[in-house]
Amino acid sequence: MSRFWSDVVHGLTPYTPGEQVQIPGLIKLNTNENPYGPSPKAMAAMQAALNDGLRKYSDPNSTAVKDAVARRFGLTREQVFVGNSSDEVLAHTFHALLKHELPLLSPDISYSFYPTYCSLYGIEAVQVPLNERFEIDINDYARPCGAIILANPNAPTGIALPLERIEALLAAHPDQVVVIDEAYVDFGADSAIALLGRHDNLLVIQTLSKSRSLAGLRVGFAVGHPDLIAGLERVKNSFNCYPLGQVAQAGAVAAIDDVAYMEQTSQAIIASRAWLTAQMAALGFETLPSHANFIFTRHPQHDGATLAAALRERAILVRHFKAVRIDQFLRISIGTDEECARLVEVLRDIL
Amino acid sequence: MSRFWSDVVHGLTPYTPGEQVQIPGLIKLNTNENPYGPSPKAMAAMQAALNDGLRKYSDPNSTAVKDAVARRFGLTREQVFVGNSSDEVLAHTFHALLKHELPLLSPDISYSFYPTYCSLYGIEAVQVPLNERFEIDINDYARPCGAIILANPNAPTGIALPLERIEALLAAHPDQVVVIDEAYVDFGADSAIALLGRHDNLLVIQTLSKSRSLAGLRVGFAVGHPDLIAGLERVKNSFNCYPLGQVAQAGAVAAIDDVAYMEQTSQAIIASRAWLTAQMAALGFETLPSHANFIFTRHPQHDGATLAAALRERAILVRHFKAVRIDQFLRISIGTDEECARLVEVLRDIL
Repeated sequence: MSRFWSDVVHGLTPYTPGEQVQIPGLIKLNTNENPYGPSPKAMAAMQAALNDGLRKYSDPNSTAVKDAVARRFGLTREQVFVGNSSDEVLAHTFHALLKHELPLLSPDISYSFYPTYCSLYGIEAVQVPLNERFEIDINDYARPCGAIILANPNAPTGIALPLERIEALLAAHPDQVVVIDEAYVDFGADSAIALLGRHDNLLVIQTLSKSRSLAGLRVGFAVGHPDLIAGLERVKNSFNCYPLGQVAQAGAVAAIDDVAYMEQTSQAIIASRAWLTAQMAALGFETLPSHANFIFTRHPQHDGATLAAALRERAILVRHFKAVRIDQFLRISIGTDEECARLVEVLRDIL
Repeated sequence: MSRFWSDVVHGLTPYTPGEQVQIPGLIKLNTNENPYGPSPKAMAAMQAALNDGLRKYSDPNSTAVKDAVARRFGLTREQVFVGNSSDEVLAHTFHALLKHELPLLSPDISYSFYPTYCSLYGIEAVQVPLNERFEIDINDYARPCGAIILANPNAPTGIALPLERIEALLAAHPDQVVVIDEAYVDFGADSAIALLGRHDNLLVIQTLSKSRSLAGLRVGFAVGHPDLIAGLERVKNSFNCYPLGQVAQAGAVAAIDDVAYMEQTSQAIIASRAWLTAQMAALGFETLPSHANFIFTRHPQHDGATLAAALRERAILVRHFKAVRIDQFLRISIGTDEECARLVEVLRDIL
């Protein structure tokens, strides 16, 4: 508290990111990082971008990154917005497109940063409960609203919504922006980008932190109708004209272009996820069907918080949320096969 | 215009950054970039940071960068805030600390991003005219206000305010935040950081884009009382928890630590500025006394816009502002000695 703070500061409950701790030998399965490194082509591009040009401002429009995204998805540059991580893209989206007289709808269990953005920008929000299987039921969104945001696959459940359900949602709300946050889409879900041509109210947000294994570079993007992108650009150019540095732009272009590497590593993670899910079932865990690079799982006989603490004592970090409906679950990122095997071994020991 | 935009978007007039054009052989003196490259130690640190660790999130608190800033200025980590460029730091500052019931005061001629931040966050502002010598007169700030922001040296004038005037301003407004934006301070002005111990209402903002020659890396910071920093952290952690990637953090630490390189290159720019100012005087230009890495200059017999256009035709880019009181001036960044000499030669030809 300080007499110097603006009113908005007093009311904020900032987001709590997963811990970034330094413990030797730690198996870190708490922040959904990719166990495989970035594309070697991205590494080479960043090497080449580390030069004297850093003395100059980077391209304020990240044109090369926009063009790489446009190439990848068959879009035009005007359909692409780029930011310093998908969290920044989300922040600008809440400010530019999700603040209206009627409330914003989002699931009660979803990315826990959404309510924080609402406090930051004074957006009224209504949380729509997931059904008893922890799924999004789009019938529950048939109500007056200013806009809608969903994560697909949803986090922390990992459950994916089929594309035809998303299209039905878009059609039911032609005058509201519907944001689909696809941070985890490359691990087996279908991207709503396929629907862009038919729906001018759709904005899709993706990140390079997960399937491109570049969480430490900070690049995200949004794609949608040029009018939506223009709204985001106006806010971005009223906040920070140059969000991405020279190295980030070079790495992002190469990472987006290297589709083969992304698909190969994502397939490896999908295979590890199937193996881990089966092993967890053998241990008595109930795991929601995941299309993400993590699983969300609970054990009928063991308390979630207690399990997370026991794993931590054995140098394995997973994420536990002290929140209603999900406080018996653990969110476990898919690591390397060795890390997954070690997790199973340690759990067998604990149970 | 779009029915999907939030109300705030319609009212925005985004900032227009200086052009980043690609013309072969161009002499680019329009965005106050440093003609010398970044510290070799910063380059080496960034090389070392380009590794597999990029798959993981970077330190959300930029602790190593905060510690480098604290070392440099004899502060504690709790007195330091770090952001993705000083523009981002400024944006969070406007949101967290400058929005109050009474208006924000700033000079009528200053960094043209300030009014843009005010529109973005709905901050009422009063622009206080510079005096007839284009100086800030702190007596003009003796009025009720919610907060004050000044650039020192001011931009685009380059004129510095002596430290005792800043201290008088701080003492006259003990219950208002006074922000001193020191983007250009290392080119010969005195930093208000020296006053931090005595004034809990002071926030000083600096950038690595100018004297550290890292405009393309995007790092800025603020220093002030821990209560001010805590307010900034709350907004930052409600916007994007991880603003700085791994490479940016490594480069920033090394650049801040390499004080000798920064001082040596800044001294070279100061010497070039003195030479250029004398040459311009010989050509009949009137140049304001600059403590920045640019000069602000006009010719009594030649129109500012016409001169800027004539220089551009000859592949020299300078900045011209179509704004009242200053539309006869050119803002010219200090380049290498060769670039300064070429500018003088071309101007001699034009006049």
